[in-house]
Amino acid sequence: MCVVSSSSSSTHHLGSSNFQAFPMDATSNSETTHDSVYEEIESFFDSAPPLKDRSDISRKLKEFIARDSHSTGGGGATRVVCVTSGGTTVPLEKRCVRYIDNFSSGHRGAASTEYFLKAGYSVIFLYRRGTFQPFCRSLPEDPLLECFEVSKELNVQVCQSHSEAVKRAIGEHRAAVDEGLLLKLPFTTIFEYLQILQLIAMSMKNLEKHAMFYLAAAVSDFYVPWKSMVEHKIQSASGPLDMRLVQVPKMLSVLRNDWVPMAFCISFKLETDSNILLEKAEKALKKYKMHLVVANELSTRKEVVVVVTSSEKISVHRDKNEADADVESPLIKLIVEKHSSYIEGSDY
Amino acid sequence: MCVVSSSSSSTHHLGSSNFQAFPMDATSNSETTHDSVYEEIESFFDSAPPLKDRSDISRKLKEFIARDSHSTGGGGATRVVCVTSGGTTVPLEKRCVRYIDNFSSGHRGAASTEYFLKAGYSVIFLYRRGTFQPFCRSLPEDPLLECFEVSKELNVQVCQSHSEAVKRAIGEHRAAVDEGLLLKLPFTTIFEYLQILQLIAMSMKNLEKHAMFYLAAAVSDFYVPWKSMVEHKIQSASGPLDMRLVQVPKMLSVLRNDWVPMAFCISFKLETDSNILLEKAEKALKKYKMHLVVANELSTRKEVVVVVTSSEKISVHRDKNEADADVESPLIKLIVEKHSSYIEGSDY
Repeated sequence: MCVVSSSSSSTHHLGSSNFQAFPMDATSNSETTHDSVYEEIESFFDSAPPLKDRSDISRKLKEFIARDSHSTGGGGATRVVCVTSGGTTVPLEKRCVRYIDNFSSGHRGAASTEYFLKAGYSVIFLYRRGTFQPFCRSLPEDPLLECFEVSKELNVQVCQSHSEAVKRAIGEHRAAVDEGLLLKLPFTTIFEYLQILQLIAMSMKNLEKHAMFYLAAAVSDFYVPWKSMVEHKIQSASGPLDMRLVQVPKMLSVLRNDWVPMAFCISFKLETDSNILLEKAEKALKKYKMHLVVANELSTRKEVVVVVTSSEKISVHRDKNEADADVESPLIKLIVEKHSSYIEGSDY
Repeated sequence: MCVVSSSSSSTHHLGSSNFQAFPMDATSNSETTHDSVYEEIESFFDSAPPLKDRSDISRKLKEFIARDSHSTGGGGATRVVCVTSGGTTVPLEKRCVRYIDNFSSGHRGAASTEYFLKAGYSVIFLYRRGTFQPFCRSLPEDPLLECFEVSKELNVQVCQSHSEAVKRAIGEHRAAVDEGLLLKLPFTTIFEYLQILQLIAMSMKNLEKHAMFYLAAAVSDFYVPWKSMVEHKIQSASGPLDMRLVQVPKMLSVLRNDWVPMAFCISFKLETDSNILLEKAEKALKKYKMHLVVANELSTRKEVVVVVTSSEKISVHRDKNEADADVESPLIKLIVEKHSSYIEGSDY
């Protein structure tokens, strides 16, 4: 597998002949213009399947933001962060049997949400269904079947060994939701993700500098436009399968420039190759005018991240002296400081 | 998206020009021979990443089968069914960030497992991580956060509304596992799935006609051979992405003919297009010499399935007069009858 990058001029043959890339038009390699990005985005939204529960999501957002402003006496002085978490999927068929998925456990987003709540933020948690939830990270894979038992008196009870973790998960999670500090919105496909993200941005726009977008979700780079997608399950036959996916429009640009031009914006760059990581993070910072980019490498992402700004690169390490310490603890501390400077106008 | 079928002689253009298929060599369209299937399978296993916990899985299987034979006084008179459930993934990168997934909630496999246990079978449940588990189907998506609360005395307790469902899930599930009637083995990738399936087949071979394979998992048809896979995350660039996937060798043939030639074998055919469903089910029955094929259509699969044998097609409907009735209830009843006839030698 391979993508034809802008520097590529010939066909690649990777590994066996089973896999190859085809050269693209030279024209598609040129830097995309502002207008063309907008066209792409318009076309993406136009062709997307309509979002189910759109009005329900809008209502929840409105109530959440209103409650939040209200609780601090109005004026929107409370800070609200939208944390995106987990990977998006790209359907390959309309009646979806097969899809391309981006791996992400959602651990980063779930952990970060906890620390943002601790720091006094209200959190809109836009997460992939089935990924890690805040306060539930230390539980086994299947907590219901692994943490509970039925007693002799036929009561359901938590196993002693998991008692504290379960209590924390249920108690703290419930408290955050009940107090109106945590709004959870699930997604599965890239279509749902970007449509909900737009709704969130619209609802947060008036918070101006007090709004933050912490975009930790692993968003698909390539997709099959809904209109050119086959209706039925792709039939397997005796030959190999060739497919062409087009790029998902870079929604970061429009989020930063149009949807929430005053919000503090943080994106993530994940690579498996550490040699290109920082360079790519810097490129993303400039290209999308992010305030911060958090660079992380797949294999060490729970130990260290690098916060890249236009003026510095700060390595943030997990505190190894403390048991169960998360790299998100110092990371969110740093980000909150940066956000404070931004609000006070002393930075950026 | 499109696959080049054996009747195809020209390039397809589906929808916009974003997506097209490329014609394959005419030679690849001919019926694959027995020898070539074996070569493909050998090459698939040779190139697959080694299975983690291989020895641990083998040990568990050995103990499970031994316990089972022992509990009925030896001789392997107890029936054992291997139920496969959920979809397999196909990694697109070795350090996996992106993969192609086959949608399957695992509801069929989980429900069927319950009915097989009820019918006295021991069940090896080979399931995709994160999919439905036996006895847990009626619970909300996130049972821990939705079914429990922390009381004023800081005890974790089940919410009244979910009390019965939770008790059943934990109690019956635990009982089946503790009594040695249910062995659960998880998989994620197509490589793990097929390697574990082979281990299960090896462990069940001596059960001869008392062994059943109920292959409800949604197995990927196409994959990227491990050896030709890129090491690092695929870089997004300004062009579209073209990729070629090759067919997963049809492991059903080798399972049926070599791994467990005496076992009662049932495969599934899921389509979204009802017009081609039965025809494809019959084709699969003959091609892989299955004893039964269960045909189901995506949109009605919880209401009705068609059991296809060499001599008949039997529609099996959910009992609509009974609340919470599953189509798996009459389906497993029918299958158990067919298996009995097979063991007694009165059929097939």
